[in-house]
Amino acid sequence: MRDLSADAKLMSLNTATLGPKRSLEDAVEGCLRHGIGGISPWRDKIAEAGLPQAVKMIRRAGLTVTGVCRGGMFPAADADGRRLALEDNRKAIDEAAALESRCLVLVVGGLAPGSKDLGDARRQVEDGIAASLDYARSVGVSLAIEPLHPMYAADRACVNTLGQALDICDRLGTGIGVAVDVYHVWWDPELAPQIARAGRDGRLFAYHLCDWMVPTTDLLLDRGMMGDGAIDLPAIRRDMEAAGYDGFCEVEIFSAGRWWPKSIDEILGTMVARGKSCI
Amino acid sequence: MRDLSADAKLMSLNTATLGPKRSLEDAVEGCLRHGIGGISPWRDKIAEAGLPQAVKMIRRAGLTVTGVCRGGMFPAADADGRRLALEDNRKAIDEAAALESRCLVLVVGGLAPGSKDLGDARRQVEDGIAASLDYARSVGVSLAIEPLHPMYAADRACVNTLGQALDICDRLGTGIGVAVDVYHVWWDPELAPQIARAGRDGRLFAYHLCDWMVPTTDLLLDRGMMGDGAIDLPAIRRDMEAAGYDGFCEVEIFSAGRWWPKSIDEILGTMVARGKSCI
Repeated sequence: MRDLSADAKLMSLNTATLGPKRSLEDAVEGCLRHGIGGISPWRDKIAEAGLPQAVKMIRRAGLTVTGVCRGGMFPAADADGRRLALEDNRKAIDEAAALESRCLVLVVGGLAPGSKDLGDARRQVEDGIAASLDYARSVGVSLAIEPLHPMYAADRACVNTLGQALDICDRLGTGIGVAVDVYHVWWDPELAPQIARAGRDGRLFAYHLCDWMVPTTDLLLDRGMMGDGAIDLPAIRRDMEAAGYDGFCEVEIFSAGRWWPKSIDEILGTMVARGKSCI
Repeated sequence: MRDLSADAKLMSLNTATLGPKRSLEDAVEGCLRHGIGGISPWRDKIAEAGLPQAVKMIRRAGLTVTGVCRGGMFPAADADGRRLALEDNRKAIDEAAALESRCLVLVVGGLAPGSKDLGDARRQVEDGIAASLDYARSVGVSLAIEPLHPMYAADRACVNTLGQALDICDRLGTGIGVAVDVYHVWWDPELAPQIARAGRDGRLFAYHLCDWMVPTTDLLLDRGMMGDGAIDLPAIRRDMEAAGYDGFCEVEIFSAGRWWPKSIDEILGTMVARGKSCI
Protein backbone atom coordinates (compact mmCIF):
# COMPACT_ATOMS: atom_id res chain seq x y z
CA MET A 1 0.00 0.00 0.00
CA ARG A 2 1.32 3.48 -0.82
CA ASP A 3 2.68 5.54 2.02
CA LEU A 4 0.56 8.71 2.07
CA SER A 5 1.91 10.08 5.34
CA ALA A 6 4.44 12.52 3.90
CA ASP A 7 2.24 15.00 2.10
CA ALA A 8 -1.16 15.58 0.51
CA LYS A 9 -0.10 15.44 -3.12
CA LEU A 10 -2.30 12.40 -3.75
CA MET A 11 -5.29 13.83 -1.93
CA SER A 12 -8.03 15.59 -3.81
CA LEU A 13 -10.60 18.04 -2.53
CA ASN A 14 -14.14 17.50 -3.68
CA THR A 15 -15.64 20.99 -3.50
CA ALA A 16 -18.70 19.67 -1.61
CA THR A 17 -16.43 19.23 1.41
CA LEU A 18 -16.31 23.00 1.91
CA GLY A 19 -20.10 23.34 1.78
CA PRO A 20 -22.35 25.18 -0.64
CA LYS A 21 -21.21 28.71 0.23
CA ARG A 22 -17.54 28.47 -0.74
CA SER A 23 -16.44 29.24 -4.31
CA LEU A 24 -14.21 27.28 -6.65
CA GLU A 25 -11.57 29.92 -6.02
CA ASP A 26 -11.84 29.27 -2.26
CA ALA A 27 -11.28 25.58 -2.96
CA VAL A 28 -8.34 26.10 -5.32
CA GLU A 29 -6.59 28.50 -2.97
CA GLY A 30 -7.24 26.15 -0.06
CA CYS A 31 -5.63 23.29 -1.97
CA LEU A 32 -2.57 25.44 -2.62
CA ARG A 33 -2.27 26.51 1.00
CA HIS A 34 -2.54 22.92 2.23
CA GLY A 35 -0.48 21.15 -0.41
CA ILE A 36 -3.46 19.19 -1.74
CA GLY A 37 -2.69 17.89 -5.21
CA GLY A 38 -6.13 17.32 -6.71
CA ILE A 39 -9.54 18.89 -6.95
CA SER A 40 -12.96 17.63 -7.96
CA PRO A 41 -15.40 20.43 -8.66
CA TRP A 42 -19.17 20.21 -8.61
CA ARG A 43 -20.75 21.73 -11.67
CA ASP A 44 -22.54 24.50 -9.79
CA LYS A 45 -19.14 25.76 -8.67
CA ILE A 46 -17.83 25.52 -12.24
CA ALA A 47 -20.86 27.48 -13.45
CA GLU A 48 -20.38 30.16 -10.79
CA ALA A 49 -16.77 30.69 -11.82
CA GLY A 50 -17.43 30.27 -15.53
CA LEU A 51 -15.87 27.30 -17.32
CA PRO A 52 -12.93 29.15 -18.99
CA GLN A 53 -12.05 30.87 -15.73
CA ALA A 54 -12.34 27.53 -13.85
CA VAL A 55 -9.99 25.86 -16.33
CA LYS A 56 -7.51 28.71 -16.04
CA MET A 57 -7.63 28.82 -12.24
CA ILE A 58 -7.13 25.08 -11.79
CA ARG A 59 -4.42 24.83 -14.44
CA ARG A 60 -2.47 27.75 -13.02
CA ALA A 61 -2.63 26.09 -9.57
CA GLY A 62 -1.23 22.87 -11.04
CA LEU A 63 -4.07 20.78 -9.63
CA THR A 64 -5.15 17.47 -11.11
CA VAL A 65 -8.89 17.31 -11.71
CA THR A 66 -9.83 13.92 -10.30
CA GLY A 67 -13.47 14.14 -11.27
CA VAL A 68 -16.28 16.43 -12.27
CA CYS A 69 -19.47 16.02 -10.23
CA ARG A 70 -21.73 15.15 -11.81
CA GLY A 71 -23.50 13.73 -14.81
CA GLY A 72 -26.29 11.18 -14.63
CA MET A 73 -29.88 11.67 -13.41
CA PHE A 74 -31.17 9.80 -16.45
CA PRO A 75 -34.61 8.43 -15.49
CA ALA A 76 -37.42 10.71 -16.56
CA ALA A 77 -41.18 10.50 -16.89
CA ASP A 78 -41.22 10.97 -20.67
CA ALA A 79 -39.16 11.31 -23.83
CA ASP A 80 -38.72 15.06 -23.37
CA GLY A 81 -37.27 14.52 -19.91
CA ARG A 82 -34.91 11.87 -21.21
CA ARG A 83 -33.76 14.15 -24.02
CA LEU A 84 -33.06 16.98 -21.56
CA ALA A 85 -31.07 14.60 -19.37
CA LEU A 86 -28.94 13.53 -22.34
CA GLU A 87 -28.31 17.15 -23.31
CA ASP A 88 -27.24 17.97 -19.79
CA ASN A 89 -24.90 14.98 -19.73
CA ARG A 90 -23.35 16.11 -23.00
CA LYS A 91 -22.70 19.49 -21.40
CA ALA A 92 -21.17 17.79 -18.36
CA ILE A 93 -18.91 15.76 -20.65
CA ASP A 94 -17.76 18.98 -22.34
CA GLU A 95 -16.92 20.49 -18.97
CA ALA A 96 -14.99 17.40 -17.93
CA ALA A 97 -13.10 17.52 -21.24
CA ALA A 98 -12.24 21.21 -20.84
CA LEU A 99 -10.97 20.55 -17.33
CA GLU A 100 -9.02 17.47 -18.47
CA SER A 101 -10.75 15.61 -15.66
CA ARG A 102 -9.83 12.01 -14.96
CA CYS A 103 -13.53 11.22 -15.17
CA LEU A 104 -17.06 12.51 -15.15
CA VAL A 105 -18.80 11.06 -12.10
CA LEU A 106 -22.28 9.74 -12.83
CA VAL A 107 -24.92 9.86 -10.12
CA VAL A 108 -27.34 7.96 -12.25
CA GLY A 109 -30.71 9.02 -10.83
CA GLY A 110 -33.46 7.22 -8.93
CA LEU A 111 -37.05 6.38 -9.79
CA ALA A 112 -38.62 8.41 -12.58
CA PRO A 113 -41.11 10.98 -11.25
CA GLY A 114 -44.33 9.27 -10.20
CA SER A 115 -42.94 5.79 -10.81
CA LYS A 116 -42.25 2.89 -8.46
CA ASP A 117 -40.65 0.80 -11.18
CA LEU A 118 -37.03 0.36 -10.15
CA GLY A 119 -36.39 -2.03 -13.04
CA ASP A 120 -37.55 0.61 -15.50
CA ALA A 121 -35.34 3.24 -13.83
CA ARG A 122 -32.37 0.92 -14.14
CA ARG A 123 -33.08 0.33 -17.81
CA GLN A 124 -33.35 4.08 -18.39
CA VAL A 125 -30.01 4.57 -16.65
CA GLU A 126 -28.27 2.03 -18.81
CA ASP A 127 -29.85 3.45 -21.96
CA GLY A 128 -28.82 6.96 -20.92
CA ILE A 129 -25.24 5.98 -20.27
CA ALA A 130 -25.10 4.05 -23.53
CA ALA A 131 -26.41 7.10 -25.38
CA SER A 132 -23.77 9.35 -23.77
CA LEU A 133 -20.81 7.04 -24.09
CA ASP A 134 -19.90 7.48 -27.76
CA TYR A 135 -19.68 11.22 -27.31
CA ALA A 136 -17.66 10.86 -24.13
CA ARG A 137 -15.23 8.55 -25.93
CA SER A 138 -14.93 10.96 -28.85
CA VAL A 139 -13.76 13.77 -26.58
CA GLY A 140 -11.66 11.52 -24.35
CA VAL A 141 -13.76 11.69 -21.17
CA SER A 142 -14.08 8.58 -19.00
CA LEU A 143 -17.48 8.06 -17.42
CA ALA A 144 -17.46 6.78 -13.83
CA ILE A 145 -20.66 5.27 -12.47
CA GLU A 146 -20.82 5.98 -8.75
CA PRO A 147 -22.92 3.32 -7.07
CA LEU A 148 -24.79 5.14 -4.34
CA HIS A 149 -25.81 3.79 -0.95
CA PRO A 150 -29.10 1.88 -1.11
CA MET A 151 -30.74 4.58 1.02
CA TYR A 152 -30.64 6.76 -2.11
CA ALA A 153 -32.25 4.20 -4.43
CA ALA A 154 -35.56 6.05 -4.66
CA ASP A 155 -34.41 9.59 -5.24
CA ARG A 156 -30.77 9.75 -6.30
CA ALA A 157 -29.31 6.60 -7.77
CA CYS A 158 -30.79 3.22 -8.58
CA VAL A 159 -27.31 1.75 -9.09
CA ASN A 160 -26.52 0.69 -5.55
CA THR A 161 -23.70 -1.82 -5.57
CA LEU A 162 -20.33 -2.03 -7.21
CA GLY A 163 -21.29 -5.37 -8.75
CA GLN A 164 -24.36 -3.85 -10.35
CA ALA A 165 -22.31 -0.95 -11.73
CA LEU A 166 -19.70 -3.32 -13.13
CA ASP A 167 -22.38 -5.44 -14.79
CA ILE A 168 -23.47 -2.29 -16.64
CA CYS A 169 -19.85 -1.54 -17.56
CA ASP A 170 -19.45 -5.08 -18.90
CA ARG A 171 -22.40 -4.57 -21.21
CA LEU A 172 -21.26 -1.13 -22.42
CA GLY A 173 -17.57 -1.72 -23.16
CA THR A 174 -14.71 0.75 -22.94
CA GLY A 175 -14.60 4.30 -21.54
CA ILE A 176 -16.89 3.46 -18.64
CA GLY A 177 -15.87 2.51 -15.12
CA VAL A 178 -16.68 3.24 -11.50
CA ALA A 179 -16.11 5.80 -8.77
CA VAL A 180 -15.75 3.90 -5.50
CA ASP A 181 -16.98 6.01 -2.60
CA VAL A 182 -16.45 4.32 0.76
CA TYR A 183 -19.60 5.90 2.17
CA HIS A 184 -21.75 4.13 -0.38
CA VAL A 185 -20.10 0.73 -0.55
CA TRP A 186 -18.36 0.00 2.76
CA TRP A 187 -21.18 -2.28 4.02
CA ASP A 188 -21.24 -4.51 0.92
CA PRO A 189 -20.36 -8.15 1.63
CA GLU A 190 -19.20 -8.36 -2.00
CA LEU A 191 -16.97 -5.28 -1.78
CA ALA A 192 -13.53 -6.90 -1.87
CA PRO A 193 -14.18 -9.24 -4.82
CA GLN A 194 -15.96 -6.50 -6.77
CA ILE A 195 -13.06 -4.08 -6.27
CA ALA A 196 -10.73 -6.81 -7.51
CA ARG A 197 -12.98 -7.36 -10.52
CA ALA A 198 -13.06 -3.63 -11.29
CA GLY A 199 -9.29 -3.51 -11.13
CA ARG A 200 -8.86 -6.50 -13.44
CA ASP A 201 -11.12 -4.81 -15.96
CA GLY A 202 -9.37 -1.42 -15.70
CA ARG A 203 -12.46 0.30 -14.36
CA LEU A 204 -11.29 1.96 -11.13
CA PHE A 205 -11.53 5.61 -12.14
CA ALA A 206 -11.96 7.35 -8.78
CA TYR A 207 -11.82 6.75 -5.04
CA HIS A 208 -13.84 8.90 -2.65
CA LEU A 209 -13.40 9.12 1.09
CA CYS A 210 -15.29 10.25 4.16
CA ASP A 211 -16.67 8.21 7.07
CA TRP A 212 -19.94 6.74 8.33
CA MET A 213 -21.05 8.32 11.59
CA VAL A 214 -22.80 6.35 14.34
CA PRO A 215 -25.42 7.58 14.77
CA THR A 216 -26.04 9.19 11.39
CA THR A 217 -28.58 11.94 11.96
CA ASP A 218 -29.38 12.89 8.37
CA LEU A 219 -29.49 10.75 5.24
CA LEU A 220 -27.73 13.37 3.13
CA LEU A 221 -25.72 15.83 5.14
CA ASP A 222 -24.17 13.97 8.06
CA ARG A 223 -21.09 12.35 6.60
CA GLY A 224 -18.05 12.15 8.80
CA MET A 225 -14.38 13.09 8.52
CA MET A 226 -12.11 10.13 7.91
CA GLY A 227 -11.33 8.47 11.22
CA ASP A 228 -14.44 9.70 13.05
CA GLY A 229 -16.74 6.91 11.96
CA ALA A 230 -17.22 3.19 11.52
CA ILE A 231 -15.44 2.47 8.24
CA ASP A 232 -12.17 0.54 8.14
CA LEU A 233 -10.65 2.91 5.58
CA PRO A 234 -7.16 1.39 5.34
CA ALA A 235 -8.70 -2.01 4.58
CA ILE A 236 -10.61 -0.62 1.62
CA ARG A 237 -7.63 1.35 0.27
CA ARG A 238 -5.56 -1.82 0.54
CA ASP A 239 -8.11 -3.62 -1.65
CA MET A 240 -8.19 -0.71 -4.09
CA GLU A 241 -4.43 -0.58 -4.47
CA ALA A 242 -4.10 -4.37 -4.63
CA ALA A 243 -6.51 -4.12 -7.56
CA GLY A 244 -4.19 -1.63 -9.25
CA TYR A 245 -5.68 1.71 -8.27
CA ASP A 246 -2.92 4.30 -8.25
CA GLY A 247 -4.95 7.50 -8.40
CA PHE A 248 -5.96 10.13 -5.90
CA CYS A 249 -7.86 9.86 -2.63
CA GLU A 250 -10.67 12.33 -3.06
CA VAL A 251 -12.39 13.64 0.04
CA GLU A 252 -16.10 14.35 -0.26
CA ILE A 253 -17.86 15.21 2.99
CA PHE A 254 -21.41 16.50 3.09
CA SER A 255 -21.69 17.72 6.64
CA ALA A 256 -24.10 20.54 7.28
CA GLY A 257 -23.87 20.39 11.05
CA ARG A 258 -20.32 19.37 11.81
CA TRP A 259 -17.83 20.48 9.13
CA TRP A 260 -19.34 23.06 6.80
CA PRO A 261 -19.68 25.66 9.59
CA LYS A 262 -15.91 25.50 10.23
CA SER A 263 -13.31 27.67 8.52
CA ILE A 264 -11.81 26.46 5.27
CA ASP A 265 -8.43 26.07 6.89
CA GLU A 266 -9.79 24.01 9.75
CA ILE A 267 -11.60 21.70 7.34
CA LEU A 268 -8.61 21.30 5.03
CA GLY A 269 -6.09 21.07 7.86
CA THR A 270 -8.06 18.24 9.41
CA MET A 271 -8.62 16.56 6.06
CA VAL A 272 -4.90 16.56 5.32
CA ALA A 273 -3.96 15.33 8.79
CA ARG A 274 -6.49 12.50 8.57
CA GLY A 275 -5.39 11.71 5.05
CA LYS A 276 -1.88 11.17 6.34
CA SER A 277 -2.93 9.02 9.30
CA CYS A 278 -6.38 7.45 8.93
CA ILE A 279 -6.89 6.25 5.40
CA MET B 1 -51.11 -14.01 -6.34
CA ARG B 2 -53.52 -14.40 -3.44
CA ASP B 3 -56.49 -12.03 -3.29
CA LEU B 4 -56.14 -10.21 0.03
CA SER B 5 -58.88 -7.67 -0.61
CA ALA B 6 -61.68 -9.39 1.31
CA ASP B 7 -60.39 -9.28 4.87
CA ALA B 8 -57.31 -8.94 7.08
CA LYS B 9 -57.05 -12.58 8.17
CA LEU B 10 -53.64 -12.91 6.53
CA MET B 11 -52.35 -9.64 7.91
CA SER B 12 -50.27 -9.54 11.04
CA LEU B 13 -49.61 -6.64 13.37
CA ASN B 14 -46.04 -6.17 14.50
CA THR B 15 -46.41 -4.43 17.83
CA ALA B 16 -43.83 -1.78 16.85
CA THR B 17 -46.45 -0.35 14.50
CA LEU B 18 -48.40 1.02 17.47
CA GLY B 19 -45.35 2.69 18.98
CA PRO B 20 -43.56 2.13 22.26
CA LYS B 21 -46.37 3.29 24.54
CA ARG B 22 -49.04 0.76 23.61
CA SER B 23 -49.21 -2.58 25.45
CA LEU B 24 -49.50 -6.10 24.10
CA GLU B 25 -53.10 -6.06 25.26
CA ASP B 26 -53.71 -2.90 23.20
CA ALA B 27 -52.30 -4.73 20.20
CA VAL B 28 -54.28 -7.93 20.73
CA GLU B 29 -57.56 -6.09 21.22
CA GLY B 30 -56.82 -3.92 18.20
CA CYS B 31 -56.31 -7.03 16.08
CA LEU B 32 -59.65 -8.40 17.26
CA ARG B 33 -61.50 -5.16 16.53
CA HIS B 34 -60.03 -4.93 13.02
CA GLY B 35 -60.13 -8.58 12.03
CA ILE B 36 -56.35 -8.90 11.82
CA GLY B 37 -55.36 -12.56 11.97
CA GLY B 38 -51.76 -12.40 13.16
CA ILE B 39 -49.55 -10.69 15.64
CA SER B 40 -45.79 -10.33 16.03
CA PRO B 41 -44.78 -9.08 19.47
CA TRP B 42 -41.54 -7.40 20.41
CA ARG B 43 -39.97 -8.88 23.49
CA ASP B 44 -40.28 -5.76 25.61
CA LYS B 45 -44.04 -6.01 25.14
CA ILE B 46 -43.96 -9.71 26.07
CA ALA B 47 -41.95 -8.86 29.18
CA GLU B 48 -44.36 -6.09 30.18
CA ALA B 49 -47.31 -8.45 29.97
CA GLY B 50 -45.44 -11.44 31.39
CA LEU B 51 -44.88 -14.44 29.13
CA PRO B 52 -47.66 -16.71 30.50
CA GLN B 53 -50.16 -13.88 30.31
CA ALA B 54 -48.99 -13.02 26.79
CA VAL B 55 -49.46 -16.63 25.71
CA LYS B 56 -52.93 -16.77 27.25
CA MET B 57 -54.00 -13.44 25.78
CA ILE B 58 -52.88 -14.26 22.24
CA ARG B 59 -54.23 -17.80 22.33
CA ARG B 60 -57.61 -16.69 23.61
CA ALA B 61 -57.79 -14.13 20.80
CA GLY B 62 -57.05 -16.87 18.26
CA LEU B 63 -54.17 -14.94 16.74
CA THR B 64 -51.32 -16.58 14.86
CA VAL B 65 -47.92 -15.45 16.11
CA THR B 66 -46.03 -14.71 12.90
CA GLY B 67 -42.79 -13.83 14.62
CA VAL B 68 -41.16 -12.80 17.86
CA CYS B 69 -38.92 -9.72 17.62
CA ARG B 70 -36.14 -10.32 18.26
CA GLY B 71 -33.10 -12.45 18.85
CA GLY B 72 -29.67 -11.68 17.49
CA MET B 73 -27.24 -8.91 18.45
CA PHE B 74 -24.40 -11.41 18.53
CA PRO B 75 -21.18 -9.39 18.02
CA ALA B 76 -19.52 -8.43 21.28
CA ALA B 77 -16.17 -7.07 22.39
CA ASP B 78 -15.21 -10.15 24.40
CA ALA B 79 -16.14 -13.69 25.39
CA ASP B 80 -18.34 -12.51 28.25
CA GLY B 81 -20.35 -10.36 25.90
CA ARG B 82 -20.74 -13.23 23.47
CA ARG B 83 -21.90 -15.56 26.25
CA LEU B 84 -24.49 -13.03 27.41
CA ALA B 85 -25.76 -12.69 23.84
CA LEU B 86 -26.16 -16.46 23.54
CA GLU B 87 -28.03 -16.62 26.84
CA ASP B 88 -30.37 -13.89 25.72
CA ASN B 89 -31.00 -15.68 22.44
CA ARG B 90 -31.83 -18.86 24.29
CA LYS B 91 -34.38 -16.91 26.30
CA ALA B 92 -35.81 -15.45 23.11
CA ILE B 93 -36.09 -18.96 21.66
CA ASP B 94 -38.00 -20.07 24.75
CA GLU B 95 -40.41 -17.17 24.37
CA ALA B 96 -40.95 -17.97 20.71
CA ALA B 97 -41.58 -21.61 21.63
CA ALA B 98 -44.10 -20.71 24.33
CA LEU B 99 -45.93 -18.45 21.90
CA GLU B 100 -45.81 -21.11 19.16
CA SER B 101 -44.39 -18.43 16.91
CA ARG B 102 -43.74 -19.18 13.27
CA CYS B 103 -40.23 -17.91 13.82
CA LEU B 104 -37.86 -15.96 15.99
CA VAL B 105 -36.67 -12.95 14.01
CA LEU B 106 -32.92 -12.35 14.25
CA VAL B 107 -31.59 -8.81 14.00
CA VAL B 108 -28.05 -10.03 14.02
CA GLY B 109 -26.14 -7.03 15.35
CA GLY B 110 -23.58 -4.64 13.86
CA LEU B 111 -19.95 -3.97 14.61
CA ALA B 112 -18.69 -5.11 17.99
CA PRO B 113 -18.17 -2.16 20.38
CA GLY B 114 -15.01 -0.26 19.45
CA SER B 115 -14.43 -2.34 16.32
CA LYS B 116 -14.40 -1.39 12.65
CA ASP B 117 -13.97 -4.99 11.52
CA LEU B 118 -17.12 -5.86 9.61
CA GLY B 119 -15.71 -9.24 8.61
CA ASP B 120 -15.19 -10.13 12.26
CA ALA B 121 -18.73 -9.01 13.11
CA ARG B 122 -20.07 -11.23 10.35
CA ARG B 123 -18.09 -14.20 11.62
CA GLN B 124 -19.39 -13.59 15.15
CA VAL B 125 -22.93 -13.47 13.81
CA GLU B 126 -22.58 -16.78 12.03
CA ASP B 127 -20.95 -18.37 15.06
CA GLY B 128 -23.71 -17.02 17.30
CA ILE B 129 -26.48 -18.35 15.09
CA ALA B 130 -24.73 -21.70 14.79
CA ALA B 131 -24.44 -21.89 18.57
CA SER B 132 -28.16 -21.11 18.99
CA LEU B 133 -29.51 -23.32 16.25
CA ASP B 134 -29.37 -26.74 17.90
CA TYR B 135 -31.37 -25.49 20.85
CA ALA B 136 -33.88 -23.78 18.56
CA ARG B 137 -34.31 -27.01 16.61
CA SER B 138 -34.76 -29.00 19.80
CA VAL B 139 -37.70 -26.86 20.88
CA GLY B 140 -39.13 -26.49 17.38
CA VAL B 141 -38.41 -22.81 16.83
CA SER B 142 -37.41 -21.62 13.36
CA LEU B 143 -34.80 -18.87 13.27
CA ALA B 144 -35.34 -16.15 10.67
CA ILE B 145 -32.39 -13.95 9.78
CA GLU B 146 -33.70 -10.52 8.86
CA PRO B 147 -31.24 -8.83 6.52
CA LEU B 148 -31.33 -5.18 7.48
CA HIS B 149 -30.90 -2.20 5.21
CA PRO B 150 -27.22 -1.35 4.65
CA MET B 151 -27.71 1.92 6.53
CA TYR B 152 -27.81 -0.22 9.70
CA ALA B 153 -24.61 -2.15 9.01
CA ALA B 154 -22.59 -0.36 11.69
CA ASP B 155 -24.98 -0.44 14.60
CA ARG B 156 -27.78 -2.95 14.08
CA ALA B 157 -27.14 -5.68 11.56
CA CYS B 158 -24.14 -6.61 9.46
CA VAL B 159 -26.24 -8.99 7.37
CA ASN B 160 -27.50 -6.62 4.73
CA THR B 161 -28.73 -8.56 1.75
CA LEU B 162 -30.95 -11.54 1.22
CA GLY B 163 -28.17 -13.28 -0.67
CA GLN B 164 -25.79 -12.86 2.24
CA ALA B 165 -28.40 -14.22 4.68
CA LEU B 166 -29.09 -17.21 2.44
CA ASP B 167 -25.39 -17.97 2.16
CA ILE B 168 -25.33 -18.22 5.96
CA CYS B 169 -28.42 -20.45 5.89
CA ASP B 170 -26.75 -22.71 3.31
CA ARG B 171 -23.81 -23.21 5.63
CA LEU B 172 -25.95 -23.84 8.71
CA GLY B 173 -28.55 -26.29 7.40
CA THR B 174 -32.14 -26.73 8.54
CA GLY B 175 -34.25 -24.68 10.94
CA ILE B 176 -32.84 -21.41 9.70
CA GLY B 177 -34.34 -19.10 7.08
CA VAL B 178 -35.10 -15.45 6.42
CA ALA B 179 -37.56 -12.71 7.26
CA VAL B 180 -37.99 -10.57 4.16
CA ASP B 181 -38.80 -6.99 5.11
CA VAL B 182 -39.51 -4.81 2.09
CA TYR B 183 -38.00 -1.77 3.81
CA HIS B 184 -34.62 -3.44 4.02
CA VAL B 185 -34.43 -5.22 0.68
CA TRP B 186 -36.56 -3.37 -1.87
CA TRP B 187 -33.56 -1.64 -3.46
CA ASP B 188 -31.54 -4.83 -4.04
CA PRO B 189 -30.84 -5.58 -7.72
CA GLU B 190 -30.63 -9.26 -6.72
CA LEU B 191 -33.95 -9.26 -4.87
CA ALA B 192 -36.08 -11.32 -7.27
CA PRO B 193 -33.56 -14.15 -7.82
CA GLN B 194 -32.73 -14.30 -4.11
CA ILE B 195 -36.42 -14.54 -3.14
CA ALA B 196 -36.76 -17.38 -5.65
CA ARG B 197 -33.70 -19.06 -4.17
CA ALA B 198 -35.08 -18.71 -0.64
CA GLY B 199 -38.36 -20.23 -1.75
CA ARG B 200 -36.67 -23.20 -3.45
CA ASP B 201 -34.76 -23.89 -0.25
CA GLY B 202 -37.84 -23.55 1.99
CA ARG B 203 -36.42 -20.56 3.84
CA LEU B 204 -39.14 -17.90 3.52
CA PHE B 205 -40.28 -17.70 7.13
CA ALA B 206 -41.75 -14.18 7.34
CA TYR B 207 -42.73 -11.22 5.19
CA HIS B 208 -42.71 -7.70 6.64
CA LEU B 209 -44.33 -4.65 5.10
CA CYS B 210 -44.18 -0.89 5.34
CA ASP B 211 -43.00 1.69 2.79
CA TRP B 212 -39.96 3.84 2.00
CA MET B 213 -40.74 7.55 2.31
CA VAL B 214 -39.22 10.17 0.00
CA PRO B 215 -37.69 12.04 1.67
CA THR B 216 -36.89 9.85 4.66
CA THR B 217 -36.18 12.22 7.54
CA ASP B 218 -34.84 9.76 10.11
CA LEU B 219 -32.84 6.58 9.64
CA LEU B 220 -34.85 4.67 12.25
CA LEU B 221 -38.26 6.12 12.85
CA ASP B 222 -39.60 7.43 9.57
CA ARG B 223 -41.01 4.36 7.88
CA GLY B 224 -44.14 4.83 5.84
CA MET B 225 -47.55 3.17 5.65
CA MET B 226 -47.94 0.85 2.68
CA GLY B 227 -48.84 2.89 -0.38
CA ASP B 228 -47.35 6.16 0.85
CA GLY B 229 -43.81 5.53 -0.36
CA ALA B 230 -41.61 4.41 -3.21
CA ILE B 231 -41.78 0.62 -2.97
CA ASP B 232 -43.61 -1.45 -5.58
CA LEU B 233 -45.19 -3.69 -2.93
CA PRO B 234 -47.36 -5.87 -5.20
CA ALA B 235 -44.31 -6.72 -7.31
CA ILE B 236 -42.42 -8.01 -4.27
CA ARG B 237 -45.40 -9.99 -2.95
CA ARG B 238 -45.78 -11.53 -6.40
CA ASP B 239 -42.17 -12.71 -6.22
CA MET B 240 -42.69 -14.00 -2.67
CA GLU B 241 -45.78 -15.99 -3.56
CA ALA B 242 -44.29 -17.27 -6.82
CA ALA B 243 -41.49 -18.61 -4.63
CA GLY B 244 -44.05 -20.45 -2.50
CA TYR B 245 -44.60 -18.06 0.39
CA ASP B 246 -48.11 -18.60 1.73
CA GLY B 247 -47.80 -16.97 5.14
CA PHE B 248 -48.90 -13.70 6.64
CA CYS B 249 -48.18 -10.12 5.60
CA GLU B 250 -46.80 -8.58 8.76
CA VAL B 251 -46.89 -4.81 9.09
CA GLU B 252 -44.01 -3.21 10.97
CA ILE B 253 -43.93 0.59 10.85
CA PHE B 254 -41.55 2.60 12.99
CA SER B 255 -42.95 6.09 12.60
CA ALA B 256 -42.38 8.47 15.48
CA GLY B 257 -43.66 11.54 13.68
CA ARG B 258 -46.39 10.32 11.40
CA TRP B 259 -48.18 7.21 12.72
CA TRP B 260 -47.37 6.57 16.37
CA PRO B 261 -49.11 9.78 17.51
CA LYS B 262 -52.39 8.60 15.95
CA SER B 263 -55.04 6.54 17.72
CA ILE B 264 -54.75 2.76 17.59
CA ASP B 265 -57.92 2.51 15.55
CA GLU B 266 -56.71 5.04 13.00
CA ILE B 267 -53.40 3.19 12.60
CA LEU B 268 -55.05 -0.23 12.32
CA GLY B 269 -57.92 0.99 10.16
CA THR B 270 -55.45 2.46 7.69
CA MET B 271 -53.21 -0.59 7.87
CA VAL B 272 -56.10 -2.91 7.03
CA ALA B 273 -57.39 -0.69 4.22
CA ARG B 274 -53.93 -0.48 2.68
CA GLY B 275 -53.43 -4.20 3.16
CA LYS B 276 -56.51 -4.81 1.06
CA SER B 277 -55.57 -2.37 -1.69
CA CYS B 278 -51.85 -1.55 -1.82
CA ILE B 279 -49.81 -4.66 -1.20
